[in-house]
Amino acid sequence: MKDTVPVVGSSSAELVRNLASGRRVALSRAISLVENRSPGFRELLAAVQPHVGRAHRIGITGPPGAGKSTLVTALVGAWRQLDLRVAIIAVDPTSPFTGGALLGDRIRMNEIALDAGVFIRSMATRGSVGGLALTTEEVADVMDAAGFDRILIETVGVGQTELDIAAATDSTVVVLVPESGDGIQAMKAGLMEVADLFVINKADRPGADRMARDVSMMLHLRAGRALRNVPAHHGVDLARAARPAARPDARPDAEAAGWEVPVLQTVASEGRGTPELADALERHFEWLARTGERARRRGQRLAGRVREVVDRAVCQIVWEDRGGNQILDESAAGLGTGEISPYDVASRIVDETVRP
Amino acid sequence: MKDTVPVVGSSSAELVRNLASGRRVALSRAISLVENRSPGFRELLAAVQPHVGRAHRIGITGPPGAGKSTLVTALVGAWRQLDLRVAIIAVDPTSPFTGGALLGDRIRMNEIALDAGVFIRSMATRGSVGGLALTTEEVADVMDAAGFDRILIETVGVGQTELDIAAATDSTVVVLVPESGDGIQAMKAGLMEVADLFVINKADRPGADRMARDVSMMLHLRAGRALRNVPAHHGVDLARAARPAARPDARPDAEAAGWEVPVLQTVASEGRGTPELADALERHFEWLARTGERARRRGQRLAGRVREVVDRAVCQIVWEDRGGNQILDESAAGLGTGEISPYDVASRIVDETVRP
Repeated sequence: MKDTVPVVGSSSAELVRNLASGRRVALSRAISLVENRSPGFRELLAAVQPHVGRAHRIGITGPPGAGKSTLVTALVGAWRQLDLRVAIIAVDPTSPFTGGALLGDRIRMNEIALDAGVFIRSMATRGSVGGLALTTEEVADVMDAAGFDRILIETVGVGQTELDIAAATDSTVVVLVPESGDGIQAMKAGLMEVADLFVINKADRPGADRMARDVSMMLHLRAGRALRNVPAHHGVDLARAARPAARPDARPDAEAAGWEVPVLQTVASEGRGTPELADALERHFEWLARTGERARRRGQRLAGRVREVVDRAVCQIVWEDRGGNQILDESAAGLGTGEISPYDVASRIVDETVRP
Repeated sequence: MKDTVPVVGSSSAELVRNLASGRRVALSRAISLVENRSPGFRELLAAVQPHVGRAHRIGITGPPGAGKSTLVTALVGAWRQLDLRVAIIAVDPTSPFTGGALLGDRIRMNEIALDAGVFIRSMATRGSVGGLALTTEEVADVMDAAGFDRILIETVGVGQTELDIAAATDSTVVVLVPESGDGIQAMKAGLMEVADLFVINKADRPGADRMARDVSMMLHLRAGRALRNVPAHHGVDLARAARPAARPDARPDAEAAGWEVPVLQTVASEGRGTPELADALERHFEWLARTGERARRRGQRLAGRVREVVDRAVCQIVWEDRGGNQILDESAAGLGTGEISPYDVASRIVDETVRP
């Protein structure tokens, strides 16, 4: 594959020229290289790094049936009128139970796929070689370096992982529908922490006004408690024990001031409210740049990626290179009888592989 | 708290006596100790280990609205008639979007909560100090040592994590309803790999027979490919890079023979089919014991727990004790400009903290 379009092995400038020339085949191959962790993927990512940072990255998330793909199609239409190039990453749902319901949405999105200024890539959550959040960000880097102006990351699952992926962007749009449940539920679930914009889609249905009011009220309560946009929620796996709760680079609350999360109402299927959404996204992007918040978020995402890569590498050293697996195998009998506890075995492995 | 009921600081025998005496306060406190990672939780878990292994652990999972809690209530009723003591761990959903729909189910479960032979504990997925799967297994250990005969782990979320938690048991029940979608979807999503029993609940609705047939057919196709009950799906986080795909302790396919996954139909709200489910669970438990499969699965779960604890400990050493955080902070500027890539920084951290 690499023979026809030299993705790896070429100089950094050559590579980026190749990507930026708009050659879809080159882009597809570069993305596959990253997704599959094929030889050379690190060099590719290092080569694109200096060319990353121009695109506006937008995450769109919400429950199944909220009309996310219709909203995406409308946004793409608005941007294409301005001759902006758009890349879309559609992250497949992880749910073993609700996975099938979204096929219709996906097919509808294919209308825009025929446009040469639009590039669509699906990413599966199962069987991802790297971590999905990490790989998604890396794929977005490749798209960014390839000169796309807008990168939309649409997550169609309903879990915390999908929310985290969507929030690993410059701007996070949370789409709800009047029947999604009330605003209190939304606040409980952590949506308030990651949303830069709320959209109540299908707003011609009963309950839209009430829901918009509820969400706005919650946002005001939340703002009072200065918990909005807590950095820990941006872009990295919340379960990682290695990431301390309060890092020195955590943003001072004062910096969060100045952006009031809008709660927009749309009927995306009829194009109602979608121009206002596009406008609100532009305003958010300007605000991010003006306040330095964009660079801060990007820095945090990059730090999160370093953490992920280090954690994986270190675990591999412990288990494979330094005999952790062997100690575990030797301890199997004692574990089975309860003679030694998992923590005993863990201590031994840590002592013998990492501690000097 | 520890003053009134000595959970920690007492001898192992005393502690287990305390738990086994059926003192609910002692049990509650022991569980909280484990859940919160409070001082002494490792000693407690080590002390209960030799007394663990008697209870039949059953995971129940399925989409929201499948009637899992009604099934649980029916099973508990059947077991209580046999004077068996039952503990239930209800794992809260992770979904930020669908979390609210299950409150009704939860309240209905409280009917059985008044029975002194039944102990119910809810566990939240958000803000779990340890990993949720790890903590759930540890809490089940405490319940096991406390003398419960059946431990039901009900997961009410719809993500892969919940499925993995439910499968970290002796027997995994996957509950579907006729409207859950077709069997092909189920197979795609990995349900076939973890299910020991399938239940089509609300089987008085249209499509139940067809769904049962589809699932059975898939199971037969699957059995032919000998992919059922692949150990990697049992009890540990699939995303962990440190766990090799094929470990030496992976079960020979021959051992999997002899258990044909039943596809039962129930109308739990009317008690139809639930005695058959209780019977099938007994048969599965006997099969597990007879074939040695129970010990094998338990060994794998224990190994998975060791891995999780080691991974967390090692990451803490790298980031906090050995200055990984500091190197990352120093690299922030270079990361921001793209001068160095996340992989460059990661390599430096690994070299300086772990590699000699």
